[in-house]
Amino acid sequence: MATPRAYERLQVDERRRRLLELGTDLFTQHSYDELSMARIARAGGISKALLYHYFPSKQAFFVATVQAAITDVQAAIDPDPSLPPAAQLDATLDAYLRWIEANAVAYGKLLRSAQAAAEVRAVVDRVRSETTDRIVAGLGPAESPPGLRTAVAGWLWCIDGACLDWIEHGAIDRDQLKRLLLGALGGAIAGAGVGTP
Amino acid sequence: MATPRAYERLQVDERRRRLLELGTDLFTQHSYDELSMARIARAGGISKALLYHYFPSKQAFFVATVQAAITDVQAAIDPDPSLPPAAQLDATLDAYLRWIEANAVAYGKLLRSAQAAAEVRAVVDRVRSETTDRIVAGLGPAESPPGLRTAVAGWLWCIDGACLDWIEHGAIDRDQLKRLLLGALGGAIAGAGVGTP
Repeated sequence: MATPRAYERLQVDERRRRLLELGTDLFTQHSYDELSMARIARAGGISKALLYHYFPSKQAFFVATVQAAITDVQAAIDPDPSLPPAAQLDATLDAYLRWIEANAVAYGKLLRSAQAAAEVRAVVDRVRSETTDRIVAGLGPAESPPGLRTAVAGWLWCIDGACLDWIEHGAIDRDQLKRLLLGALGGAIAGAGVGTP
Repeated sequence: MATPRAYERLQVDERRRRLLELGTDLFTQHSYDELSMARIARAGGISKALLYHYFPSKQAFFVATVQAAITDVQAAIDPDPSLPPAAQLDATLDAYLRWIEANAVAYGKLLRSAQAAAEVRAVVDRVRSETTDRIVAGLGPAESPPGLRTAVAGWLWCIDGACLDWIEHGAIDRDQLKRLLLGALGGAIAGAGVGTP
């Protein structure tokens, strides 16, 4: 059974988690400039002082909500390591597209207006770089050929560009989009002359 | 022969053009916050009042330098309409990669920190959207199948992502990068099941 101290800690974590969920809603519905810490506190039913206890500034709160959204995506797309690499990639991409379909507004915002904050750009850049490393390691031999990394790095941008078009125009279904994207990766790798996954 | 008034106009255009060239250098070398209108005027050897006469604010000056850089790229990559579509695309992509190679720092900055300004994001979005329309019109039949636009839109992002990796890691040469990118486009279009260019 949890000790009183552990229980208190749980409450703190839980409140923080709920504030971040609230943040995702608020930053999706309003522009950054429209929101103030006073308004966020009011929406969360807590005092401004308590909100500042959790997050030292609006910017810090904003960056934390973005980080939480990214953690949420990453948990959703975590691949099954028992599958072969190509099947892992397929399943991960499928899970990513499902997440985007369910969170289209937040995703669009993250890729567009959220990039105004240098901290958010840094988080997105770091995630892209780590994801590139992971995919290259999964696809390639120990010494990955020059060009494979460039192909994968370009492909991650391709996913976001195609997904933005998808959520804005919705011309094709999720499965066709997945085939389009897997085709782009295969074509990039073949075009660079570094073998196919 | 130019009339005095036309000559004056030419001087105004020429000074504006030189200020924009200066802006590209300054914004490439310094962060946006480091620069003030006073410093920009000093670097240009003109009075602050005259600088304000050309550009009403630092933000307006910044957006104008980005717009000028984009106009410069577009002039460099303008395709020869007498070539068949696939050859036009190849030539345009080649010219674009050459421009990036020659302007790597400005390009990297445009895609990263410059996105902090909403006006710059709007310009980049508009250019991507117009370029997508132009490529789709060049590649497809009059009624372009759903998916072709998504493939091309994703591909434009792929170009930028791969180019950022290229200028940061430089693992492959320009020709290999071009083949990688043409492979990605062909693979995306084939993957979406909408025929090949």
